[in-house]
Amino acid sequence: MMDAVLELRYALDTFYFLISGALVMWMAAGFAMLESGLVRAKNTAEILTKNVALYAIACIMYMLMGYNIMYPAEASSLYWSGIDFMLGSDNTLEEMLASDGDIYYSSSSDFFFQVVFVATAMSIVSGAVAERMKLWAFLLFAVVMTGFIYPVQGFWNWGSGFLSESFGYSDYAGSGTVHLCGAAAALAGVIFLGARKGKYASDGSVNAIPGANLPLATLGTFILWLGWFGFNGGSELAVSGLESANNVAKVFVNTNTAAAGGVIAALAVARFMFGKADLTMALNGAIAGLVAITADPLSPGAGWATCIGAIGGALVVFSIVFLDKLKIDDPVGAISAHGTVGIWGVLAVTVSQTGEDSATLLGQSMGVLSIFLWTFVMSSIVWLILKATIGIRVTEEEEYNGVDLSECGLEAYPEFTSSKA
Amino acid sequence: MMDAVLELRYALDTFYFLISGALVMWMAAGFAMLESGLVRAKNTAEILTKNVALYAIACIMYMLMGYNIMYPAEASSLYWSGIDFMLGSDNTLEEMLASDGDIYYSSSSDFFFQVVFVATAMSIVSGAVAERMKLWAFLLFAVVMTGFIYPVQGFWNWGSGFLSESFGYSDYAGSGTVHLCGAAAALAGVIFLGARKGKYASDGSVNAIPGANLPLATLGTFILWLGWFGFNGGSELAVSGLESANNVAKVFVNTNTAAAGGVIAALAVARFMFGKADLTMALNGAIAGLVAITADPLSPGAGWATCIGAIGGALVVFSIVFLDKLKIDDPVGAISAHGTVGIWGVLAVTVSQTGEDSATLLGQSMGVLSIFLWTFVMSSIVWLILKATIGIRVTEEEEYNGVDLSECGLEAYPEFTSSKA
Amino acid sequence: MMDAVLELRYALDTFYFLISGALVMWMAAGFAMLESGLVRAKNTAEILTKNVALYAIACIMYMLMGYNIMYPAEASSLYWSGIDFMLGSDNTLEEMLASDGDIYYSSSSDFFFQVVFVATAMSIVSGAVAERMKLWAFLLFAVVMTGFIYPVQGFWNWGSGFLSESFGYSDYAGSGTVHLCGAAAALAGVIFLGARKGKYASDGSVNAIPGANLPLATLGTFILWLGWFGFNGGSELAVSGLESANNVAKVFVNTNTAAAGGVIAALAVARFMFGKADLTMALNGAIAGLVAITADPLSPGAGWATCIGAIGGALVVFSIVFLDKLKIDDPVGAISAHGTVGIWGVLAVTVSQTGEDSATLLGQSMGVLSIFLWTFVMSSIVWLILKATIGIRVTEEEEYNGVDLSECGLEAYPEFTSSKA
Repeated sequence: MMDAVLELRYALDTFYFLISGALVMWMAAGFAMLESGLVRAKNTAEILTKNVALYAIACIMYMLMGYNIMYPAEASSLYWSGIDFMLGSDNTLEEMLASDGDIYYSSSSDFFFQVVFVATAMSIVSGAVAERMKLWAFLLFAVVMTGFIYPVQGFWNWGSGFLSESFGYSDYAGSGTVHLCGAAAALAGVIFLGARKGKYASDGSVNAIPGANLPLATLGTFILWLGWFGFNGGSELAVSGLESANNVAKVFVNTNTAAAGGVIAALAVARFMFGKADLTMALNGAIAGLVAITADPLSPGAGWATCIGAIGGALVVFSIVFLDKLKIDDPVGAISAHGTVGIWGVLAVTVSQTGEDSATLLGQSMGVLSIFLWTFVMSSIVWLILKATIGIRVTEEEEYNGVDLSECGLEAYPEFTSSKA
Repeated sequence: MMDAVLELRYALDTFYFLISGALVMWMAAGFAMLESGLVRAKNTAEILTKNVALYAIACIMYMLMGYNIMYPAEASSLYWSGIDFMLGSDNTLEEMLASDGDIYYSSSSDFFFQVVFVATAMSIVSGAVAERMKLWAFLLFAVVMTGFIYPVQGFWNWGSGFLSESFGYSDYAGSGTVHLCGAAAALAGVIFLGARKGKYASDGSVNAIPGANLPLATLGTFILWLGWFGFNGGSELAVSGLESANNVAKVFVNTNTAAAGGVIAALAVARFMFGKADLTMALNGAIAGLVAITADPLSPGAGWATCIGAIGGALVVFSIVFLDKLKIDDPVGAISAHGTVGIWGVLAVTVSQTGEDSATLLGQSMGVLSIFLWTFVMSSIVWLILKATIGIRVTEEEEYNGVDLSECGLEAYPEFTSSKA
Repeated sequence: MMDAVLELRYALDTFYFLISGALVMWMAAGFAMLESGLVRAKNTAEILTKNVALYAIACIMYMLMGYNIMYPAEASSLYWSGIDFMLGSDNTLEEMLASDGDIYYSSSSDFFFQVVFVATAMSIVSGAVAERMKLWAFLLFAVVMTGFIYPVQGFWNWGSGFLSESFGYSDYAGSGTVHLCGAAAALAGVIFLGARKGKYASDGSVNAIPGANLPLATLGTFILWLGWFGFNGGSELAVSGLESANNVAKVFVNTNTAAAGGVIAALAVARFMFGKADLTMALNGAIAGLVAITADPLSPGAGWATCIGAIGGALVVFSIVFLDKLKIDDPVGAISAHGTVGIWGVLAVTVSQTGEDSATLLGQSMGVLSIFLWTFVMSSIVWLILKATIGIRVTEEEEYNGVDLSECGLEAYPEFTSSKA
């Protein structure tokens, strides 16, 4: 009889995992819409291609390599844990019942949940390098990032690596492990790539390059907001008990309210700084709120969660302005929303957690430093190799005409733009 | 042993609540897309900003005030029930087991489900006042609407107020409590705001002002349709028993078929009246079908549910034409789809329910009257105060140039529109 | 006690069915966005109208007729099984407990899951006949297709008809039953309709007619990808046991990885054939991967599933090029993605399944032949009758000016396109 209940719990937790994973998969569409809305029309088809292709690459590379690197402990008898999914095996009823509660969901469902996470990290990169990077160089980078760079540092946190084991690094759904990691790779790419032509004038002024389609960018933000319920909500890894169900519910409430706080704060700061209700800042504020709460959406009450999100929302505006001063050209604000705010999220954990085994400032800082350095250095090496071989930047003429024509051979909106902007 | 089953039911009901809430949250994106597709390009960024910001405001105000007003009985020891979520507490296993079935889901999940409902009510307003209202006046109105006006009348129905207790008012998911409420606030706003310049010519003719992006409007409608499965389906409040599961399934079937009926009826009526297959009417027909079935998606069979939706779909076309005759300028048809059809939905309950404790025409009419009057009067007061202080309407020049430039300082489609329409 | 567990399993399986069905419903939005993104601006409102209306028609016709034809065995006492849903009845607790496991989910939830499938089949047709078919002729065809043609052949596979009973035809979620069926109807329509003016020049060259809005097409593809988790994942029909949960998880993993394989293969083949990273081919590659795995997403490991998808992704590019050589004008590539690749999916089952009761090449071929022939012949008859009576093709002038004006009386993007493309 108890077995029937255990089996049912297994089923519910598996189903919860799958739905959460599907919501995270949906974030790939969110990034695609957000980024395609914030670039110019002439570079839209290319960034859409990047987003579709990077998701596909992430799924395949993580299966072939990444999952094995990140979760070696979960391999059955072989080192190469991904082989289980390649061959399609899963837990048996006997294994589950004998596991004393250790096995409580399908390992395929866990793999599915993990595989969509790596795509999220990679999606962060595509926005930052938009409008001037070569498509194939980007896709090659995606191969290394999703197959190797991300999984190695992911192991440090979630795969029983040194961050979680030795430093008590606490990062619930990955403000650092996913978002900072993606932003660090993006920062390296942006530095080696250089700014878009015309972005920074020789007199030091910054030229705003408006996105072509703000409804798309707004849609993308709403998609991310929705998907984040899977991203954070699924990271509890269980829902079938009273406590885990309460936890997942709390994570939903906090995730939602942090994003709300981020919107309000970003809108207010932008109003104060620019005099207008800047929609793109409101959108980045929502994302910043979500990134900020991701490192610990479980410990805080909704009040403090709102504040964490609001601080993230304010921070993202300042960071975007600041990066422009440094002439670090990030067309969609991804480095600020995921990097700067990701760091804030990781550090905020030290305030949110108050019990005995709480995260420490040392541990969290160690996490920030090691994730950033590893990803930045490794990414730089890959970007440099790509630059030295096939090149990472399109020609000036191609950039002027738009990368859609040179890279994809088609236009995203052939009837709407009579002349190139 | 039984305890394990109770815990599992608690988990399933909580998870069901969270997924339903996430689907309702998704409706915020639906309204944003629908409305931004139906306004002119020059007013698009502003309505997107409104939609993102109103959702954020609704979430925060409902946490701070609204939930406490609407569900005072569910406070723990304090009056201020929202404090539970601000601090992050939830049911314990002991409380649940001792509650004799009263406590069967996480109170955080309930809060999440409620908080997204208030955003829906507020989203209805933004479309109706589009293209000429000041952004900040609108957002201030949103603060009062979501923190006070909506929750007070919501209490009457769902918080054990006089409508449900004394009049047997029956409104399953809120044709009246949510949709009529939003439409009444919108109507007050539209009246005090006045029509868009050029909408009604001095010779009495009505000038059609076409929306800039109908794929977006269609997408928004599909999003609403999907989200409504959470809106209505989640309003059963439980899924973990055979009867509740059957009920939720029936609600899904009826919600879907009512929307289908609304589409067909609106398309047919529009074909008859205008000679063409008017897409915007088909979209409004879908929404009308959904609004109409919302007051009782559980009692009718799918046959009658289809008819309820179809009558709603026909009604929305007549209502839109009629409001134009009254020079009530609602750019997206929200007052018709949610107000006129919301009333129909509430009244249709008297036909759908046939048992002993069925809703009465008196009770349902009392609901319509009190919800409408309360919301309309209170909203009017707020609109008037705003009008007398910061003003609610942009200047004629700003309206001519588009509110995007004056309110947001940017354009939604900078490359697509060479001249202002 | 055991009864409580059975009831809970019933609830979980019902909930799983409903969520899966909601995801499949969401595919209607995916087709609408995909198709509206791939046609020219002047034909966009009409295809949106078609997509909204066909979904509504499918839901109503399947309730009135289709479900009764496809699942006669599931009727209660009456032949007309749909009457149950028209009247709103469902399983009782006693029936469920006495059924010895046969009844384990709400029959309303099953109906909901089935009804959204027929809409998918019909959505395939709308894209192929885009830009020149009369709206009302199309909608009349939808009535016959969803009420009769699809259900009859659906019965052969899922309703205990001759294909599954006598030939061991194996088609898990309908590569043949849904996708090939839709494509066969589309092919018949395209043949009787003829190519768009200007598509095929008299010198034999093929004129590319680019889609107006590629972000929409990309969004549509992502929506389909997400919805397919419901389409395939829900087709296990149960999730509440360890084995069924494992199976659903495996289906999610394989569905995802097949789509990823499809993207990579289509992108590579297009790069090789056209020299560019053709976004529309990448999108069709994703859909092809999904269609290919649909006939059996459960037997293969993720490795072979990726290959099945990749072969589908390559095949769709070749098929699109080949159909153009035959002057079969399919604006969105639906016949290739769902038809050609649907056949591949059905045949691939013979490789995926290796056990004793595996599908045979004979059985699978029999399925392909009978589904194709039935649908193609019946559709041809309907198209011919429509052609002989109300006509199926708009006039040359209407086609030149765009069907939006003639059929819908409005434009999809009135401000973006100064002149007709």
